[in-house]
Amino acid sequence: MARIWNFYAGPATLPLAALVRARDELVEWAGTGMSVMETSHRSKEYEEVHRGAMSLIKELLGLGDEHEVLFVQGGASLQFAMLPMNFVPPGGSADYVITGSWAKKALDEAKLIAAGRVAATAGPDFTRVPSRAEIEVDPNAAYLHVTSNNTIKGTQFHHFPDPGNVPLVADMSSDFLWRPFDAGRFDLIYAGAQKNVGPAGVTIVVIRKSWLERANTAIPSMLAYRTHADNDSLYNTPPSFSIYMVRNVLQWLKELGGLSAMEQRNRAKGDLLYAAIDGRPDFYRCPVEVASRSYMNVVFRLPTEQLEAKFVADAEARGLVGLKGHRSVGGCRASIYNAMEPAGVEALVGFMEEFARSQG
Amino acid sequence: MARIWNFYAGPATLPLAALVRARDELVEWAGTGMSVMETSHRSKEYEEVHRGAMSLIKELLGLGDEHEVLFVQGGASLQFAMLPMNFVPPGGSADYVITGSWAKKALDEAKLIAAGRVAATAGPDFTRVPSRAEIEVDPNAAYLHVTSNNTIKGTQFHHFPDPGNVPLVADMSSDFLWRPFDAGRFDLIYAGAQKNVGPAGVTIVVIRKSWLERANTAIPSMLAYRTHADNDSLYNTPPSFSIYMVRNVLQWLKELGGLSAMEQRNRAKGDLLYAAIDGRPDFYRCPVEVASRSYMNVVFRLPTEQLEAKFVADAEARGLVGLKGHRSVGGCRASIYNAMEPAGVEALVGFMEEFARSQG
Repeated sequence: MARIWNFYAGPATLPLAALVRARDELVEWAGTGMSVMETSHRSKEYEEVHRGAMSLIKELLGLGDEHEVLFVQGGASLQFAMLPMNFVPPGGSADYVITGSWAKKALDEAKLIAAGRVAATAGPDFTRVPSRAEIEVDPNAAYLHVTSNNTIKGTQFHHFPDPGNVPLVADMSSDFLWRPFDAGRFDLIYAGAQKNVGPAGVTIVVIRKSWLERANTAIPSMLAYRTHADNDSLYNTPPSFSIYMVRNVLQWLKELGGLSAMEQRNRAKGDLLYAAIDGRPDFYRCPVEVASRSYMNVVFRLPTEQLEAKFVADAEARGLVGLKGHRSVGGCRASIYNAMEPAGVEALVGFMEEFARSQG
Repeated sequence: MARIWNFYAGPATLPLAALVRARDELVEWAGTGMSVMETSHRSKEYEEVHRGAMSLIKELLGLGDEHEVLFVQGGASLQFAMLPMNFVPPGGSADYVITGSWAKKALDEAKLIAAGRVAATAGPDFTRVPSRAEIEVDPNAAYLHVTSNNTIKGTQFHHFPDPGNVPLVADMSSDFLWRPFDAGRFDLIYAGAQKNVGPAGVTIVVIRKSWLERANTAIPSMLAYRTHADNDSLYNTPPSFSIYMVRNVLQWLKELGGLSAMEQRNRAKGDLLYAAIDGRPDFYRCPVEVASRSYMNVVFRLPTEQLEAKFVADAEARGLVGLKGHRSVGGCRASIYNAMEPAGVEALVGFMEEFARSQG
């Protein structure tokens, strides 16, 4: 069958060019006579992929020698634990901005390891993110943690907090590299690849070297950022095929024009979709406050749950897949990450118009 | 170019059938109109892959409901930490059989977390594994840990220790599923996939349920085996493409006749290669004692390091790649895991004969 439009929240759609390249060289790659996934992580051919992916991340973010890129495993969920293990000193505490389930999980995990404190919350409904003024940072906090985009509730930070001298950390799993931003302001960024930059199985960490030097010691090797930094993320066998796919995706992103071009494309997609929702307020409704709306995950409701179920099923029959909202909140959700083509959003908007008319 | 013979120690050669299948459905898979790596880990199509891989492992091992299969990330190196975190009780200690670098690393990591004790060692040269009689198990140990196969030194346990009532744990990363064995005797087996059963990025854990119930609580969620068991290894996004590849490899293994057929094939390959070494004692020399020789990683020396370097380079020019020994020990090493075809070993043996003659 033909490729459909994939609106899953993650793992999510990938650039066709990155997939076609992987397919074409899956069995015999780079003149090696083997697949990239069969080659030693100590081979020069794999090292080129590994370092190429690292360099592309720094290049796209405009970062220099002050930051380092790491590839680790375990997803954002393992970062929830690694972060406090590495950076909350004995007797210390870390601050968290609570904007939904993932931020809560990050805080809960930190509390298993150290003290964690809520610096701001946008609850109970999480239909917005807190403003800078609402975030009260403990000046002695080990760091301030934010979740830059909230896949479940469809909110996104469009202006990051400014915690002064407190290190700033962000979980950017669902909007990493969606637009240009001042990455140099962050002491640590982490992102599971499977939403915006690749398949599942690798987590990208961007860390300020001077902060890394202050990390706790005597923690298990694989859980210490230092281990990965000291070994160029080759301390043990890395998830090489996932990193190879990330490299393919980043090359596509660079060829497309980098983060500025990507932002333009993402804003056009999001604006089109929100206009389709807001243009039919009798039928579609986005619960998120306008200033906090996500350009990655667009959530919306229909008049009844029955209509939502029919919408999702009818859409799927038309090749628009993955529009069911997260099981914890219901409703509908269209994830339109970097790799979603504008034509996919246009197809969705066309279907929404038609569906609303047919039910009106 | 054509496929070469890949003797890398891991990531390593994979069955061509598993790769071709992956290539053919890389862009559009299972009638979904997307790649397996783009599909939600909550989709029914992915769940079939996930549970299929789990079932195949239990089926191949002949295990029933008493054991559970988990998929985790981080490789054996993270297992080195997870194991004591989960299973050494406060004030307790664990026993390790030291058969080389990997076993030492496992013990060193355990000592960061709890007390670890050497139950036996085969040092200083590690050219054999200890016999059952040499292994002195602390009857109060939380578990006895063995590394079933040693990739660097080329040794392998052909008879596992019997620690009585002490739980038995094995790192089988480099020989998992190479032959039938009594998996039911083990309380926990772990194996990074990238040697015998798939690409890097997923670690298989087989755990006895009744032992899991005794695991420590209040450890970080991602590091608790219980979290993965309670959620069918879908607590967070699994490394889905790596698991898909493992499923492909396991189906190939089953179609080939399962573990008995695999053992026959592996013994024939290993016997052929060791005969080629032993048959020219003036030129090739295997430092490993015969009873401890590995059927996965065959290590051998040539008369001089210069000849070894020439051997590796000439072999590579003939399409026999990855024969250099581990950087910590030098020499030559042929990794001939499950997926290495007998024809690959025959080609190597032919080349070895020719090379020895040409230098004689």
